[in-house]
Amino acid sequence: MMEQFQLTDELIIKIADLISAKNNSTLKKLVKDIHFADMADIINLLNEEQGIYLIKLFDSEKTSEILTELDENVREKILKALSVKEIADEIEELDSDDAVDILSELSEERKEKVISEISDDNLADDLIELLSYEEDSAGGLMAKELVKANENWTVLKCLSEIKKQGENVTRVHSIYVVDNKDRLIGRLSLKDLIASPSKNKIKDIYIPKVDSVNVLENGEDIAKIMSKYNLEAIPVIDDKKHLVGRITIDDIVDFIKEEAEEDYLIAAGIQGDVEADDSIFQLTIARLPWLFLGLIGGLGSVFILEGFEEFMNDPSYKALFFFTPLIAAMAGNVGVQSSAIIVQGLANDVIKGSLIKRLFKELGLSLINGIILGLLTILFGIAINQPIELSLVISLSMLCVIVVAALIGTSIPIILEKRGIDPAIATGPFITTSNDIFGIFLFFYIAKIFLL
Amino acid sequence: MMEQFQLTDELIIKIADLISAKNNSTLKKLVKDIHFADMADIINLLNEEQGIYLIKLFDSEKTSEILTELDENVREKILKALSVKEIADEIEELDSDDAVDILSELSEERKEKVISEISDDNLADDLIELLSYEEDSAGGLMAKELVKANENWTVLKCLSEIKKQGENVTRVHSIYVVDNKDRLIGRLSLKDLIASPSKNKIKDIYIPKVDSVNVLENGEDIAKIMSKYNLEAIPVIDDKKHLVGRITIDDIVDFIKEEAEEDYLIAAGIQGDVEADDSIFQLTIARLPWLFLGLIGGLGSVFILEGFEEFMNDPSYKALFFFTPLIAAMAGNVGVQSSAIIVQGLANDVIKGSLIKRLFKELGLSLINGIILGLLTILFGIAINQPIELSLVISLSMLCVIVVAALIGTSIPIILEKRGIDPAIATGPFITTSNDIFGIFLFFYIAKIFLL
Repeated sequence: MMEQFQLTDELIIKIADLISAKNNSTLKKLVKDIHFADMADIINLLNEEQGIYLIKLFDSEKTSEILTELDENVREKILKALSVKEIADEIEELDSDDAVDILSELSEERKEKVISEISDDNLADDLIELLSYEEDSAGGLMAKELVKANENWTVLKCLSEIKKQGENVTRVHSIYVVDNKDRLIGRLSLKDLIASPSKNKIKDIYIPKVDSVNVLENGEDIAKIMSKYNLEAIPVIDDKKHLVGRITIDDIVDFIKEEAEEDYLIAAGIQGDVEADDSIFQLTIARLPWLFLGLIGGLGSVFILEGFEEFMNDPSYKALFFFTPLIAAMAGNVGVQSSAIIVQGLANDVIKGSLIKRLFKELGLSLINGIILGLLTILFGIAINQPIELSLVISLSMLCVIVVAALIGTSIPIILEKRGIDPAIATGPFITTSNDIFGIFLFFYIAKIFLL
Repeated sequence: MMEQFQLTDELIIKIADLISAKNNSTLKKLVKDIHFADMADIINLLNEEQGIYLIKLFDSEKTSEILTELDENVREKILKALSVKEIADEIEELDSDDAVDILSELSEERKEKVISEISDDNLADDLIELLSYEEDSAGGLMAKELVKANENWTVLKCLSEIKKQGENVTRVHSIYVVDNKDRLIGRLSLKDLIASPSKNKIKDIYIPKVDSVNVLENGEDIAKIMSKYNLEAIPVIDDKKHLVGRITIDDIVDFIKEEAEEDYLIAAGIQGDVEADDSIFQLTIARLPWLFLGLIGGLGSVFILEGFEEFMNDPSYKALFFFTPLIAAMAGNVGVQSSAIIVQGLANDVIKGSLIKRLFKELGLSLINGIILGLLTILFGIAINQPIELSLVISLSMLCVIVVAALIGTSIPIILEKRGIDPAIATGPFITTSNDIFGIFLFFYIAKIFLL
């Protein structure tokens, strides 16, 4: 049974106390059985000095695993406190994809120094190669560790080679089959290998159908391919079809989660990769731009409302001004709903067919919603003894605002996607702000046509 | 090299034409090498009749895989067109977790009939067991197929057993080790098994440390555990520690994606599991409730604004009404930003420490943003020759609105989480609407204190 680890305040305090008492033996005993991912959570909560003290207590193998799981800003501080030699030792313990993630956070100068400290030349070469790829490309996501078999080997030779190669590989998944020129030609499952007579040749038993991705492919597409085809690992090849690495599903899980978080925050008007624990300065930078956009929009609507000031002088119609927050809210909410569903659909590749067809559907949908909400608004008008013609005009204008907001919300993401811009930015303050202004203008304009 | 499949309009038209011409041989040749996940995409785009025609063309193995990948509403129609016997045949081809997903979409009556048609009694029992669990619990996510070894077996016996058991298991991952009472006691990697002398006993070579989850655990927690500890599969046990199933990472990937989509849509004011291709009726049901909430909020602010009608009679101060959309937008945007970052943090378990500390941070952050935006508003006032005392009051009120909106946005998700309610619902129309009303009230109230 899994010991479900519970991170409690008491544990943190206990660890902090043991650190200040420099009681290493008790400390070691206390943290011995804690998983490295939980250990990282603990260090994230300690202060810098305590974290460094604690991390130096472990052997390289555990330290390196903890490093990969730390929050980026905590890791940055800890890496600064470690010597070049110490970092090189940690890196030698890691899979190449994790090693390169840590390396890429160092300054150019330290990066080079660390690599030159690495005693295993093959690993150093691998790391230099991996550092040359874009972070979110197949090359940046892949690890060099994999198990491969030459098509001309026998099953027996293959089994003994796998035992050797497997030492560096945490999980075997598939065995990739290559020709004499190291070009990927197929795959072989460990299960099938075990089940085959030992004298058979690999070329007689391998599966020639193998999915792969080019080393330059971007992470988002790889995530789609792996999740669509339920792959747990995918080999990476270069333009000449040479097998250069392997991406495993756990890296893709992290990638999918990060992408989803980013989309979620963008939709809420927060840009960049921030989280609740970042500094006030980082959070301000992430949040101010969209608020600034909202300010511009709000000040813009001041002018629009000024333009319809004449309604204020008419005792029967000045109530229109009381409805501006309602209209702005409706325009914003409808626009966000419409665009969110399109952004989601685009991300899942389910938005097929023409824009015109989508717009007709959205027209129907928004008419239904608008009529229902309009009728309720008329009932509200009757309840508060509002002149009926005013209620009718408010409801009609609101209906128009809802329809237009829905059509804008639907079109903008589709147009952005066609122009190669991430449609996710459309949902959120951008749509809300533009729909606010547009909605208020439309509302008063329609009211003017009917009432003045 | 992977043949990256391209789903084109031409292909769909070609397939539709071949179906109407009933040209089965050409059709079969055309679709032979298309992956089942792509085949599902094609059938999603065909009409019902064409989809059923096409799906009946394949053998059970491929049909069943296609069924698992179809959109739910398309699958529903196709299942209706298949006989009980045909469905039973498909289900026998699938892993038990996929089989149960399909079964659970049938009516109670058909479900029972299908199960009684299944010739393999063990499978039927497994399916009945799996159907008894909640869909999003470990029991609902797990498959019964796994490879297990008794601690008393020798390596040799284990290898031959695995060959037998492995036939039903697509991917082996770990071999789970059980005692004579079928209780999970550890795990064994295939790699280590191959590397061990064949006479060794399993009890001498297995790893006693194994993560597992209880069959009643909920999916969200399992997703957290698997992604945190980078697990590719996790065994499922009952309260007596009996090994009852296994969850693999590919199911969790789907789960994570669905959860992220749901959160995204909830934040945009859309409830339930809808997508762009659903019917207008389904989409209305998903969207109307939040719009209705927005309507209530908007009508509420009509009363608030009426309460401050006296400002309208004062030529110098009636401009306050022109600023209501700005204030509502600021209150909404700031509230959404604050709550989104907390919701995200809660989902990632990084929100530690006291609510008071969070609120102080948010206070600082919102003061900085509010002062910057307030100064810009004063500059705007100077530019449009607005009385300076009016600009000052507007900026000061806006600052208060921003601070209060930030504090509300921060507290509500934390309070909801503590009461066991999904905090995701807080981001979105709920926060926007309540902050709109509250912001407008605060704005005019402060203005009244200073100006009247």
